[in-house]
Amino acid sequence: MTSAAHWSPAEARQRIRKNEWLKPTSGVSNGFVQANLAVLPKELAFDFLLFCQRNPKPCPLIDVIEAGSSVPKLAAPEANIKTDIPKYRIYRHGKLVEETTDVVDIWDDNMVGFLIGCSFTFEEALIKNGIPIRHIEENCNVPMYKTNIPCVKAGVFEGPMVVSMRPMTEKDAIRAVQVTSRFPSVHGAPVHLGNPGTIGIKDINQPDFGDPVTIHDGEIPVFWACGVTPQAVAMEVKPEIMITHAPGHMFITDLKIEHFSTM
Amino acid sequence: MTSAAHWSPAEARQRIRKNEWLKPTSGVSNGFVQANLAVLPKELAFDFLLFCQRNPKPCPLIDVIEAGSSVPKLAAPEANIKTDIPKYRIYRHGKLVEETTDVVDIWDDNMVGFLIGCSFTFEEALIKNGIPIRHIEENCNVPMYKTNIPCVKAGVFEGPMVVSMRPMTEKDAIRAVQVTSRFPSVHGAPVHLGNPGTIGIKDINQPDFGDPVTIHDGEIPVFWACGVTPQAVAMEVKPEIMITHAPGHMFITDLKIEHFSTM
Repeated sequence: MTSAAHWSPAEARQRIRKNEWLKPTSGVSNGFVQANLAVLPKELAFDFLLFCQRNPKPCPLIDVIEAGSSVPKLAAPEANIKTDIPKYRIYRHGKLVEETTDVVDIWDDNMVGFLIGCSFTFEEALIKNGIPIRHIEENCNVPMYKTNIPCVKAGVFEGPMVVSMRPMTEKDAIRAVQVTSRFPSVHGAPVHLGNPGTIGIKDINQPDFGDPVTIHDGEIPVFWACGVTPQAVAMEVKPEIMITHAPGHMFITDLKIEHFSTM
Repeated sequence: MTSAAHWSPAEARQRIRKNEWLKPTSGVSNGFVQANLAVLPKELAFDFLLFCQRNPKPCPLIDVIEAGSSVPKLAAPEANIKTDIPKYRIYRHGKLVEETTDVVDIWDDNMVGFLIGCSFTFEEALIKNGIPIRHIEENCNVPMYKTNIPCVKAGVFEGPMVVSMRPMTEKDAIRAVQVTSRFPSVHGAPVHLGNPGTIGIKDINQPDFGDPVTIHDGEIPVFWACGVTPQAVAMEVKPEIMITHAPGHMFITDLKIEHFSTM
Protein backbone atom coordinates (compact mmCIF):
# COMPACT_ATOMS: atom_id res chain seq x y z
CA MET A 1 0.00 0.00 0.00
CA THR A 2 1.46 3.35 -1.04
CA SER A 3 1.24 6.55 0.98
CA ALA A 4 -1.53 7.73 -1.36
CA ALA A 5 -3.72 5.03 0.19
CA HIS A 6 -3.58 6.92 3.48
CA TRP A 7 -4.25 10.42 2.14
CA SER A 8 -7.49 11.91 3.37
CA PRO A 9 -9.92 12.64 0.52
CA ALA A 10 -9.30 16.40 1.05
CA GLU A 11 -5.52 15.90 0.77
CA ALA A 12 -5.87 13.74 -2.34
CA ARG A 13 -8.17 16.29 -4.02
CA GLN A 14 -5.77 19.14 -3.20
CA ARG A 15 -2.90 17.32 -4.92
CA ILE A 16 -5.14 16.58 -7.89
CA ARG A 17 -6.24 20.24 -8.05
CA LYS A 18 -2.59 21.35 -8.16
CA ASN A 19 -1.88 18.83 -10.94
CA GLU A 20 0.52 16.99 -8.63
CA TRP A 21 -1.44 13.74 -9.17
CA LEU A 22 -2.39 13.03 -12.80
CA LYS A 23 -2.69 9.22 -12.61
CA PRO A 24 -5.66 6.87 -12.10
CA THR A 25 -7.11 7.03 -8.58
CA SER A 26 -7.26 3.30 -7.84
CA GLY A 27 -5.71 2.77 -4.40
CA VAL A 28 -5.91 6.46 -3.38
CA SER A 29 -7.68 7.31 -0.05
CA ASN A 30 -8.62 3.74 0.84
CA GLY A 31 -11.99 3.32 2.54
CA PHE A 32 -13.63 6.25 0.73
CA VAL A 33 -16.14 6.07 -2.11
CA GLN A 34 -14.87 7.07 -5.56
CA ALA A 35 -17.27 8.21 -8.27
CA ASN A 36 -17.70 8.42 -12.04
CA LEU A 37 -18.61 11.85 -13.43
CA ALA A 38 -21.16 12.67 -16.14
CA VAL A 39 -22.01 16.31 -16.86
CA LEU A 40 -24.91 17.14 -19.15
CA PRO A 41 -26.84 20.23 -20.27
CA LYS A 42 -29.77 21.13 -18.00
CA GLU A 43 -32.35 20.25 -20.71
CA LEU A 44 -31.32 16.58 -20.46
CA ALA A 45 -30.99 16.52 -16.67
CA PHE A 46 -34.51 15.35 -15.73
CA ASP A 47 -34.44 12.47 -18.20
CA PHE A 48 -30.94 11.44 -17.11
CA LEU A 49 -31.80 11.64 -13.41
CA LEU A 50 -34.88 9.51 -14.09
CA PHE A 51 -32.76 7.04 -16.08
CA CYS A 52 -30.43 6.65 -13.09
CA GLN A 53 -33.38 6.32 -10.70
CA ARG A 54 -34.91 3.58 -12.87
CA ASN A 55 -31.63 1.72 -13.33
CA PRO A 56 -30.04 1.88 -9.88
CA LYS A 57 -27.79 -1.16 -10.37
CA PRO A 58 -25.76 0.24 -13.30
CA CYS A 59 -26.35 3.91 -12.31
CA PRO A 60 -26.02 4.26 -8.51
CA LEU A 61 -26.20 8.03 -7.94
CA ILE A 62 -23.85 9.32 -5.26
CA ASP A 63 -24.61 13.03 -5.73
CA VAL A 64 -26.12 15.48 -8.21
CA ILE A 65 -24.54 18.91 -8.68
CA GLU A 66 -27.38 21.27 -9.54
CA ALA A 67 -27.12 23.86 -12.33
CA GLY A 68 -25.27 26.96 -11.17
CA SER A 69 -23.05 25.07 -8.70
CA SER A 70 -19.82 23.09 -8.98
CA VAL A 71 -19.81 21.81 -5.41
CA PRO A 72 -20.90 18.21 -4.66
CA LYS A 73 -22.60 19.28 -1.43
CA LEU A 74 -23.41 15.78 -0.18
CA ALA A 75 -20.37 13.87 -1.40
CA ALA A 76 -17.62 16.44 -0.69
CA PRO A 77 -18.81 19.93 0.37
CA GLU A 78 -15.27 21.41 0.21
CA ALA A 79 -14.52 20.11 -3.28
CA ASN A 80 -14.78 21.72 -6.70
CA ILE A 81 -15.87 19.36 -9.44
CA LYS A 82 -14.24 21.58 -12.11
CA THR A 83 -10.70 20.93 -10.83
CA ASP A 84 -10.66 17.91 -8.51
CA ILE A 85 -10.48 15.07 -11.04
CA PRO A 86 -7.04 14.16 -12.47
CA LYS A 87 -8.21 13.88 -16.06
CA TYR A 88 -11.46 14.91 -17.81
CA ARG A 89 -12.87 14.08 -21.23
CA ILE A 90 -14.91 16.57 -23.24
CA TYR A 91 -17.41 15.20 -25.77
CA ARG A 92 -19.27 17.33 -28.32
CA HIS A 93 -22.19 15.72 -30.18
CA GLY A 94 -20.99 12.33 -28.89
CA LYS A 95 -17.39 12.72 -30.10
CA LEU A 96 -14.34 12.96 -27.84
CA VAL A 97 -12.71 16.33 -28.65
CA GLU A 98 -10.33 16.91 -25.74
CA GLU A 99 -8.69 15.50 -22.60
CA THR A 100 -7.86 18.06 -19.94
CA THR A 101 -6.86 18.37 -16.26
CA ASP A 102 -9.59 20.87 -15.40
CA VAL A 103 -12.85 22.14 -16.93
CA VAL A 104 -12.89 25.65 -15.41
CA ASP A 105 -13.18 27.37 -18.81
CA ILE A 106 -15.76 24.96 -20.23
CA TRP A 107 -18.24 24.58 -17.36
CA ASP A 108 -21.21 26.95 -17.41
CA ASP A 109 -24.31 27.53 -15.30
CA ASN A 110 -26.45 25.48 -17.66
CA MET A 111 -24.73 22.21 -16.70
CA VAL A 112 -25.80 19.54 -14.22
CA GLY A 113 -23.19 17.10 -12.85
CA PHE A 114 -23.91 13.51 -11.86
CA LEU A 115 -21.59 11.51 -9.59
CA ILE A 116 -22.17 7.79 -10.05
CA GLY A 117 -20.80 5.03 -7.84
CA CYS A 118 -17.89 2.94 -9.11
CA SER A 119 -16.94 -0.66 -8.49
CA PHE A 120 -13.78 0.24 -6.54
CA THR A 121 -16.21 0.60 -3.64
CA PHE A 122 -17.42 -2.97 -3.45
CA GLU A 123 -14.09 -4.46 -4.52
CA GLU A 124 -12.65 -3.28 -1.22
CA ALA A 125 -15.46 -5.14 0.58
CA LEU A 126 -14.75 -8.31 -1.46
CA ILE A 127 -11.01 -8.16 -0.69
CA LYS A 128 -11.74 -7.72 3.02
CA ASN A 129 -13.74 -10.95 2.75
CA GLY A 130 -10.75 -12.79 1.30
CA ILE A 131 -12.08 -12.91 -2.27
CA PRO A 132 -9.23 -12.27 -4.75
CA ILE A 133 -9.89 -9.79 -7.57
CA ARG A 134 -8.23 -11.06 -10.76
CA HIS A 135 -7.74 -7.76 -12.61
CA ILE A 136 -6.02 -6.32 -9.53
CA GLU A 137 -3.78 -9.43 -9.32
CA GLU A 138 -3.02 -9.10 -13.05
CA ASN A 139 -2.60 -5.32 -12.76
CA CYS A 140 -4.99 -4.45 -15.59
CA ASN A 141 -8.42 -2.88 -16.07
CA VAL A 142 -11.57 -4.88 -15.19
CA PRO A 143 -13.12 -6.61 -18.26
CA MET A 144 -16.46 -5.07 -19.28
CA TYR A 145 -19.09 -6.35 -21.74
CA LYS A 146 -22.20 -5.06 -23.48
CA THR A 147 -25.11 -7.40 -22.68
CA ASN A 148 -28.58 -8.17 -24.02
CA ILE A 149 -30.11 -6.88 -20.75
CA PRO A 150 -32.06 -3.72 -21.65
CA CYS A 151 -31.96 -0.80 -19.24
CA VAL A 152 -35.33 0.73 -18.38
CA LYS A 153 -35.92 3.68 -20.75
CA ALA A 154 -36.38 7.21 -19.39
CA GLY A 155 -37.22 10.02 -21.80
CA VAL A 156 -34.52 10.10 -24.50
CA PHE A 157 -32.20 7.69 -22.70
CA GLU A 158 -32.17 3.95 -23.44
CA GLY A 159 -29.72 1.17 -24.20
CA PRO A 160 -28.21 -2.11 -23.01
CA MET A 161 -26.57 -2.66 -19.63
CA VAL A 162 -22.78 -2.88 -19.51
CA VAL A 163 -21.42 -5.35 -16.94
CA SER A 164 -18.02 -5.89 -15.34
CA MET A 165 -16.75 -9.45 -14.73
CA ARG A 166 -14.74 -11.00 -11.92
CA PRO A 167 -13.89 -14.74 -12.03
CA MET A 168 -13.98 -16.69 -8.74
CA THR A 169 -14.76 -20.11 -7.25
CA GLU A 170 -18.42 -21.04 -6.73
CA LYS A 171 -17.88 -20.82 -2.98
CA ASP A 172 -16.52 -17.29 -3.28
CA ALA A 173 -19.38 -16.41 -5.66
CA ILE A 174 -21.93 -17.21 -2.94
CA ARG A 175 -20.05 -15.06 -0.42
CA ALA A 176 -19.72 -12.30 -3.05
CA VAL A 177 -23.51 -12.24 -3.48
CA GLN A 178 -23.90 -11.77 0.27
CA VAL A 179 -21.17 -9.14 0.60
CA THR A 180 -22.25 -6.98 -2.34
CA SER A 181 -25.97 -7.26 -1.48
CA ARG A 182 -25.12 -5.13 1.56
CA PHE A 183 -24.25 -2.27 -0.82
CA PRO A 184 -27.39 -1.77 -2.95
CA SER A 185 -26.47 1.87 -3.57
CA VAL A 186 -23.11 1.01 -5.19
CA HIS A 187 -24.10 -1.64 -7.80
CA GLY A 188 -25.33 -4.19 -5.22
CA ALA A 189 -25.61 -7.93 -5.91
CA PRO A 190 -24.35 -9.45 -9.18
CA VAL A 191 -26.77 -9.36 -12.11
CA HIS A 192 -25.59 -12.74 -13.44
CA LEU A 193 -23.18 -15.60 -12.83
CA GLY A 194 -22.08 -18.58 -14.91
CA ASN A 195 -22.82 -18.92 -18.65
CA PRO A 196 -21.90 -15.63 -20.39
CA GLY A 197 -24.14 -16.50 -23.38
CA THR A 198 -27.28 -16.15 -21.25
CA ILE A 199 -26.77 -12.38 -21.14
CA GLY A 200 -25.58 -12.10 -24.74
CA ILE A 201 -21.81 -12.22 -24.23
CA LYS A 202 -20.29 -14.18 -27.17
CA ASP A 203 -16.63 -14.41 -26.13
CA ILE A 204 -15.60 -13.93 -22.51
CA ASN A 205 -11.99 -13.42 -23.67
CA GLN A 206 -12.93 -10.42 -25.80
CA PRO A 207 -14.38 -7.74 -23.52
CA ASP A 208 -15.95 -4.65 -25.14
CA PHE A 209 -14.09 -2.37 -22.70
CA GLY A 210 -11.13 -2.92 -20.37
CA ASP A 211 -8.82 -5.96 -20.51
CA PRO A 212 -9.36 -9.75 -20.60
CA VAL A 213 -8.36 -11.62 -17.39
CA THR A 214 -7.46 -15.27 -16.71
CA ILE A 215 -10.30 -17.58 -15.63
CA HIS A 216 -8.78 -20.57 -13.79
CA ASP A 217 -10.21 -24.11 -13.78
CA GLY A 218 -12.97 -24.35 -11.18
CA GLU A 219 -13.86 -20.68 -11.46
CA ILE A 220 -17.03 -19.12 -12.84
CA PRO A 221 -17.47 -15.59 -14.15
CA VAL A 222 -19.56 -13.32 -11.92
CA PHE A 223 -21.10 -10.20 -13.50
CA TRP A 224 -22.00 -6.87 -11.90
CA ALA A 225 -23.85 -3.92 -13.44
CA CYS A 226 -21.19 -1.39 -14.45
CA GLY A 227 -21.04 2.39 -14.03
CA VAL A 228 -19.93 2.72 -17.65
CA THR A 229 -23.58 2.08 -18.63
CA PRO A 230 -24.97 5.60 -18.03
CA GLN A 231 -22.09 7.24 -19.94
CA ALA A 232 -22.55 4.84 -22.86
CA VAL A 233 -26.30 5.51 -22.89
CA ALA A 234 -25.86 9.31 -22.65
CA MET A 235 -23.34 9.27 -25.50
CA GLU A 236 -25.95 7.65 -27.78
CA VAL A 237 -28.05 10.82 -27.52
CA LYS A 238 -25.06 12.87 -28.85
CA PRO A 239 -25.58 15.81 -26.49
CA GLU A 240 -24.21 19.19 -27.61
CA ILE A 241 -21.69 18.91 -24.78
CA MET A 242 -20.91 16.21 -22.24
CA ILE A 243 -18.05 16.09 -19.73
CA THR A 244 -16.85 12.87 -18.06
CA HIS A 245 -13.84 11.70 -16.06
CA ALA A 246 -11.18 9.85 -18.06
CA PRO A 247 -11.37 6.07 -17.39
CA GLY A 248 -9.86 5.18 -14.01
CA HIS A 249 -9.43 8.86 -13.06
CA MET A 250 -12.23 9.13 -10.51
CA PHE A 251 -13.60 11.75 -8.17
CA ILE A 252 -12.69 10.95 -4.55
CA THR A 253 -15.57 11.71 -2.17
CA ASP A 254 -15.60 12.27 1.61
CA LEU A 255 -18.05 9.37 2.01
CA LYS A 256 -16.89 6.25 3.80
CA ILE A 257 -17.62 2.98 2.05
CA GLU A 258 -19.20 1.43 5.15
CA HIS A 259 -21.69 4.32 5.15
CA PHE A 260 -23.26 2.72 2.06
CA SER A 261 -23.91 -0.65 3.68
CA THR A 262 -27.56 -1.38 4.48
CA MET A 263 -26.71 -3.87 7.26
CA MET B 1 -58.73 -11.69 5.99
CA THR B 2 -61.43 -10.44 3.61
CA SER B 3 -61.79 -11.50 -0.01
CA ALA B 4 -60.25 -8.14 -1.05
CA ALA B 5 -56.96 -9.44 0.36
CA HIS B 6 -56.92 -12.08 -2.37
CA TRP B 7 -57.82 -9.83 -5.29
CA SER B 8 -55.07 -9.52 -7.88
CA PRO B 9 -53.83 -5.93 -8.25
CA ALA B 10 -55.55 -5.78 -11.69
CA GLU B 11 -58.87 -6.90 -10.18
CA ALA B 12 -58.58 -4.42 -7.30
CA ARG B 13 -57.78 -1.55 -9.67
CA GLN B 14 -60.72 -2.46 -11.93
CA ARG B 15 -63.15 -2.25 -9.00
CA ILE B 16 -61.58 1.04 -7.93
CA ARG B 17 -61.87 2.39 -11.50
CA LYS B 18 -65.59 1.52 -11.57
CA ASN B 19 -66.05 3.25 -8.18
CA GLU B 20 -67.05 -0.09 -6.62
CA TRP B 21 -64.31 0.33 -3.98
CA LEU B 22 -64.09 3.80 -2.42
CA LYS B 23 -62.49 2.86 0.92
CA PRO B 24 -58.86 2.86 2.14
CA THR B 25 -56.74 0.15 0.50
CA SER B 26 -55.16 -1.32 3.63
CA GLY B 27 -55.55 -5.10 3.40
CA VAL B 28 -56.33 -5.12 -0.34
CA SER B 29 -54.21 -7.37 -2.63
CA ASN B 30 -51.91 -8.68 0.11
CA GLY B 31 -48.30 -9.20 -0.89
CA PHE B 32 -48.25 -6.34 -3.40
CA VAL B 33 -46.61 -2.94 -2.97
CA GLN B 34 -48.97 0.02 -2.46
CA ALA B 35 -47.84 3.56 -3.25
CA ASN B 36 -48.46 7.20 -2.34
CA LEU B 37 -49.14 9.55 -5.26
CA ALA B 38 -47.78 13.07 -5.79
CA VAL B 39 -48.42 14.85 -9.09
CA LEU B 40 -46.64 18.12 -9.85
CA PRO B 41 -46.21 20.49 -12.80
CA LYS B 42 -43.29 19.61 -15.08
CA GLU B 43 -41.32 22.76 -14.07
CA LEU B 44 -40.96 21.34 -10.54
CA ALA B 45 -40.29 17.75 -11.60
CA PHE B 46 -36.46 17.81 -11.72
CA ASP B 47 -36.18 19.38 -8.27
CA PHE B 48 -38.75 16.98 -6.80
CA LEU B 49 -37.10 13.92 -8.39
CA LEU B 50 -33.76 15.09 -7.00
CA PHE B 51 -35.35 15.64 -3.56
CA CYS B 52 -36.59 12.04 -3.59
CA GLN B 53 -33.21 10.77 -4.79
CA ARG B 54 -31.43 12.65 -1.97
CA ASN B 55 -33.89 11.53 0.69
CA PRO B 56 -34.52 7.88 -0.15
CA LYS B 57 -35.66 6.89 3.34
CA PRO B 58 -38.71 9.20 3.51
CA CYS B 59 -39.16 9.32 -0.30
CA PRO B 60 -38.63 5.83 -1.75
CA LEU B 61 -39.60 6.21 -5.42
CA ILE B 62 -41.49 3.27 -6.88
CA ASP B 63 -42.16 4.79 -10.31
CA VAL B 64 -42.25 8.14 -12.13
CA ILE B 65 -44.94 8.80 -14.72
CA GLU B 66 -43.38 11.09 -17.32
CA ALA B 67 -45.19 14.14 -18.72
CA GLY B 68 -47.65 13.16 -21.45
CA SER B 69 -48.39 9.73 -19.95
CA SER B 70 -50.72 8.46 -17.24
CA VAL B 71 -49.42 4.90 -17.21
CA PRO B 72 -47.03 3.74 -14.45
CA LYS B 73 -45.04 1.61 -16.89
CA LEU B 74 -42.82 -0.05 -14.29
CA ALA B 75 -45.23 -0.40 -11.39
CA ALA B 76 -48.40 -1.38 -13.28
CA PRO B 77 -48.25 -1.17 -17.09
CA GLU B 78 -52.00 -1.88 -17.49
CA ALA B 79 -53.11 0.78 -15.01
CA ASN B 80 -54.27 4.37 -15.45
CA ILE B 81 -53.15 6.69 -12.69
CA LYS B 82 -56.05 9.10 -13.44
CA THR B 83 -58.74 6.59 -12.37
CA ASP B 84 -57.17 3.78 -10.35
CA ILE B 85 -57.00 5.37 -6.90
CA PRO B 86 -60.18 5.32 -4.75
CA LYS B 87 -59.92 8.95 -3.62
CA TYR B 88 -57.75 11.84 -4.83
CA ARG B 89 -57.05 15.27 -3.34
CA ILE B 90 -56.54 18.37 -5.49
CA TYR B 91 -54.45 21.20 -4.06
CA ARG B 92 -54.11 24.65 -5.64
CA HIS B 93 -51.38 26.94 -4.31
CA GLY B 94 -51.00 24.61 -1.30
CA LYS B 95 -54.71 24.59 -0.38
CA LEU B 96 -57.00 21.54 -0.56
CA VAL B 97 -59.80 22.49 -2.95
CA GLU B 98 -61.45 19.18 -3.82
CA GLU B 99 -61.66 15.45 -3.13
CA THR B 100 -62.61 13.32 -6.11
CA THR B 101 -62.71 9.69 -7.32
CA ASP B 102 -60.85 10.38 -10.57
CA VAL B 103 -58.72 13.16 -12.08
CA VAL B 104 -59.49 12.59 -15.77
CA ASP B 105 -60.65 16.19 -16.32
CA ILE B 106 -57.85 17.81 -14.32
CA TRP B 107 -54.75 15.94 -15.51
CA ASP B 108 -52.88 17.51 -18.41
CA ASP B 109 -49.73 16.74 -20.41
CA ASN B 110 -47.69 19.17 -18.32
CA MET B 111 -47.91 16.97 -15.20
CA VAL B 112 -45.41 14.45 -13.83
CA GLY B 113 -46.61 11.77 -11.39
CA PHE B 114 -44.50 10.27 -8.61
CA LEU B 115 -45.36 6.96 -6.93
CA ILE B 116 -43.71 6.73 -3.53
CA GLY B 117 -43.45 3.62 -1.36
CA CYS B 118 -45.72 3.34 1.68
CA SER B 119 -45.21 1.64 5.00
CA PHE B 120 -47.90 -0.99 4.37
CA THR B 121 -45.09 -2.76 2.51
CA PHE B 122 -42.74 -3.33 5.42
CA GLU B 123 -45.53 -3.81 7.95
CA GLU B 124 -46.43 -7.04 6.17
CA ALA B 125 -42.80 -8.17 6.59
CA LEU B 126 -42.88 -7.27 10.31
CA ILE B 127 -46.13 -9.18 10.87
CA LYS B 128 -44.70 -12.25 9.12
CA ASN B 129 -41.86 -12.06 11.66
CA GLY B 130 -44.33 -12.15 14.55
CA ILE B 131 -43.96 -8.47 15.45
CA PRO B 132 -47.37 -7.00 16.37
CA ILE B 133 -48.32 -3.63 14.84
CA ARG B 134 -50.19 -1.58 17.44
CA HIS B 135 -52.22 0.71 15.15
CA ILE B 136 -53.48 -2.34 13.27
CA GLU B 137 -54.42 -4.01 16.60
CA GLU B 138 -56.16 -0.78 17.67
CA ASN B 139 -57.74 -0.31 14.24
CA CYS B 140 -56.57 3.27 13.77
CA ASN B 141 -54.10 5.21 11.62
CA VAL B 142 -50.35 5.01 12.37
CA PRO B 143 -49.11 7.95 14.54
CA MET B 144 -46.86 10.35 12.61
CA TYR B 145 -44.65 13.19 13.91
CA LYS B 146 -42.70 16.11 12.50
CA THR B 147 -39.07 15.82 13.66
CA ASN B 148 -36.00 18.03 13.92
CA ILE B 149 -34.23 15.85 11.30
CA PRO B 150 -33.75 18.04 8.22
CA CYS B 151 -34.22 16.48 4.80
CA VAL B 152 -31.46 17.18 2.29
CA LYS B 153 -32.51 20.23 0.21
CA ALA B 154 -32.95 19.93 -3.56
CA GLY B 155 -33.74 23.05 -5.57
CA VAL B 156 -36.89 24.64 -4.11
CA PHE B 157 -37.73 21.65 -1.91
CA GLU B 158 -36.68 21.47 1.74
CA GLY B 159 -38.16 20.72 5.15
CA PRO B 160 -38.13 18.36 8.15
CA MET B 161 -38.58 14.61 7.97
CA VAL B 162 -41.91 13.17 9.09
CA VAL B 163 -41.68 9.81 10.88
CA SER B 164 -44.19 7.08 11.71
CA MET B 165 -43.99 5.29 15.07
CA ARG B 166 -44.59 1.68 16.11
CA PRO B 167 -44.13 0.65 19.78
CA MET B 168 -42.57 -2.76 20.49
CA THR B 169 -40.33 -4.64 22.94
CA GLU B 170 -36.57 -4.10 22.68
CA LYS B 171 -36.20 -7.67 21.43
CA ASP B 172 -38.70 -7.04 18.64
CA ALA B 173 -36.98 -3.71 17.89
CA ILE B 174 -33.72 -5.52 17.11
CA ARG B 175 -35.52 -7.97 14.83
CA ALA B 176 -37.42 -5.07 13.23
CA VAL B 177 -34.10 -3.38 12.34
CA GLN B 178 -32.97 -6.58 10.62
CA VAL B 179 -36.25 -7.19 8.81
CA THR B 180 -36.74 -3.65 7.50
CA SER B 181 -33.07 -3.25 6.53
CA ARG B 182 -33.78 -5.83 3.84
CA PHE B 183 -36.13 -3.30 2.20
CA PRO B 184 -33.99 -0.17 1.64
CA SER B 185 -36.19 0.93 -1.25
CA VAL B 186 -39.35 1.08 0.88
CA HIS B 187 -38.21 3.18 3.90
CA GLY B 188 -35.59 0.65 5.08
CA ALA B 189 -34.26 0.53 8.65
CA PRO B 190 -35.70 2.75 11.42
CA VAL B 191 -34.27 6.28 11.65
CA HIS B 192 -34.53 6.32 15.45
CA LEU B 193 -35.60 4.30 18.48
CA GLY B 194 -36.12 5.17 22.15
CA ASN B 195 -36.27 8.76 23.46
CA PRO B 196 -38.63 10.78 21.24
CA GLY B 197 -37.07 14.07 22.45
CA THR B 198 -33.81 13.26 20.64
CA ILE B 199 -35.51 13.84 17.29
CA GLY B 200 -37.59 16.80 18.49
CA ILE B 201 -40.84 15.04 19.40
CA LYS B 202 -42.28 16.77 22.49
CA ASP B 203 -45.27 14.55 23.31
CA ILE B 204 -45.46 10.99 21.96
CA ASN B 205 -49.20 10.96 22.77
CA GLN B 206 -49.89 13.91 20.46
CA PRO B 207 -48.91 12.93 16.92
CA ASP B 208 -48.92 15.63 14.22
CA PHE B 209 -50.77 13.29 11.82
CA GLY B 210 -52.70 10.05 12.33
CA ASP B 211 -53.80 8.72 15.74
CA PRO B 212 -52.06 8.10 19.10
CA VAL B 213 -51.53 4.43 20.04
CA THR B 214 -50.95 2.66 23.38
CA ILE B 215 -47.32 2.09 24.44
CA HIS B 216 -47.23 -0.77 26.95
CA ASP B 217 -44.74 -1.10 29.84
CA GLY B 218 -41.51 -2.61 28.54
CA GLU B 219 -42.00 -1.22 25.04
CA ILE B 220 -40.01 1.45 23.26
CA PRO B 221 -41.12 3.61 20.32
CA VAL B 222 -39.44 2.78 17.01
CA PHE B 223 -39.48 5.45 14.28
CA TRP B 224 -39.38 5.04 10.50
CA ALA B 225 -39.07 7.74 7.84
CA CYS B 226 -42.59 8.34 6.52
CA GLY B 227 -43.90 8.77 2.97
CA VAL B 228 -45.93 11.79 4.10
CA THR B 229 -42.64 13.75 4.08
CA PRO B 230 -42.42 14.49 0.33
CA GLN B 231 -46.06 15.63 0.16
CA ALA B 232 -45.56 17.92 3.17
CA VAL B 233 -42.40 19.35 1.62
CA ALA B 234 -44.02 19.85 -1.81
CA MET B 235 -46.99 21.60 -0.23
CA GLU B 236 -44.66 24.20 1.32
CA VAL B 237 -43.75 25.38 -2.18
CA LYS B 238 -47.47 26.06 -2.85
CA PRO B 239 -47.42 24.76 -6.44
CA GLU B 240 -50.09 26.08 -8.80
CA ILE B 241 -51.56 22.57 -8.83
CA MET B 242 -50.74 19.37 -7.00
CA ILE B 243 -52.65 16.10 -6.96
CA THR B 244 -52.24 13.42 -4.28
CA HIS B 245 -54.08 10.32 -3.08
CA ALA B 246 -56.36 10.85 -0.06
CA PRO B 247 -54.74 9.44 3.13
CA GLY B 248 -54.96 5.64 3.24
CA HIS B 249 -56.36 5.46 -0.32
CA MET B 250 -53.28 4.13 -2.09
CA PHE B 251 -52.34 3.04 -5.58
CA ILE B 252 -52.01 -0.77 -5.77
CA THR B 253 -49.05 -1.81 -7.96
CA ASP B 254 -48.27 -5.11 -9.70
CA LEU B 255 -44.97 -5.32 -7.79
CA LYS B 256 -44.53 -8.06 -5.20
CA ILE B 257 -43.20 -6.95 -1.85
CA GLU B 258 -40.47 -9.60 -1.81
CA HIS B 259 -39.18 -8.10 -5.08
CA PHE B 260 -38.00 -5.11 -3.02
CA SER B 261 -35.87 -7.14 -0.62
CA THR B 262 -32.10 -6.83 -1.11
CA MET B 263 -31.38 -10.21 0.48
